[in-house]
Formats: sequence, C-alpha cells, structure tokens
Amino acid sequence: MNKAVFFHAGCPVCVAAEHQVIDALDSRRYEVEIVHLGENPERIAEAEQAGIQSVPALLLDGASFHINFGASLADVKGGA
Amino acid sequence: MNKAVFFHAGCPVCVAAEHQVIDALDSRRYEVEIVHLGENPERIAEAEQAGIQSVPALLLDGASFHINFGASLADVKGGA
Repeated sequence: MNKAVFFHAGCPVCVAAEHQVIDALDSRRYEVEIVHLGENPERIAEAEQAGIQSVPALLLDGASFHINFGASLADVKGGA
Repeated sequence: MNKAVFFHAGCPVCVAAEHQVIDALDSRRYEVEIVHLGENPERIAEAEQAGIQSVPALLLDGASFHINFGASLADVKGGA
C-alpha cells in the first residue's frame, strides 16, 4: 500500500482542498492520513523534514506537493 | 466519469509532479487529460478561465489546484 499524508492547518482553503484532492486519490493503492498541524504541532518537524514549506500539502510516498497558496509553516507555528 | 486536467509547461518540476500526482488519482473515477501549455498555447485562456495562475496545476471537476511553486502563466506566455 502506498502512503499519502495530507497536512493542513484547518483553514477553509485547506479543508476544501483536502476533500477534493483526497477523494480523487485511488483508495485501492493509497492509504491516506490527514494531519491537522494546528492540533498536532508535534508533527510540524516531520512535515518540515519531508520538505513541506506550506499547507495544505500532500505527501505521496515521501514526495511533497504543495497545493495552492496556503499558510506557511511559520504561521502555523505562530498559531495564526 | 469525473474529469481531471493536468496543465504543465514541460519544465522538470512539472513533469515529475505530473507522473506522481496523476498516477495517484483513481483511474476508475477520473478521466485524465494532460495539457502542455508550451505546445498548446491556445489553451492558456481556458486555464486562466478555470482560475489557474501557475503550472503545474490540476483541475478536478473544474476546481483548480496549484501544485508546488511553478512557472507563472505570464512566463509561459513569454516563452520562458
């Protein structure tokens, strides 16, 4: 099973992207995990190490894809 | 069948994103079209009308998702 992780921060643009992009993934091949960095700040380091610079972002088998123009991780850290 | 359109401009970051993101889509539900705007500049207007501001971008049932930080459509128009 491939692994897809969707990182977001609860903002409306994130949630909208989340539903549509995740829904389009092939659930036969991808196990999807959704991570709200505002509620799980302990996972910000993991996101950064994966190369994620902003949210919403999708990690497909370790490769990061930033979606749209969202909030920077610096803002998420600051509680924005 | 849902419709997914992937717009890109042939740059390496676009091609890499293209393969991984498109491969992750559910082919049972999405008919995928790939549009190279450098080779098909007549479709730039269509992309703009869909709300696309940069490539690579994915259009899922008409909703635009910009992927990563790519080339602006202004650059594509200019032949960059």
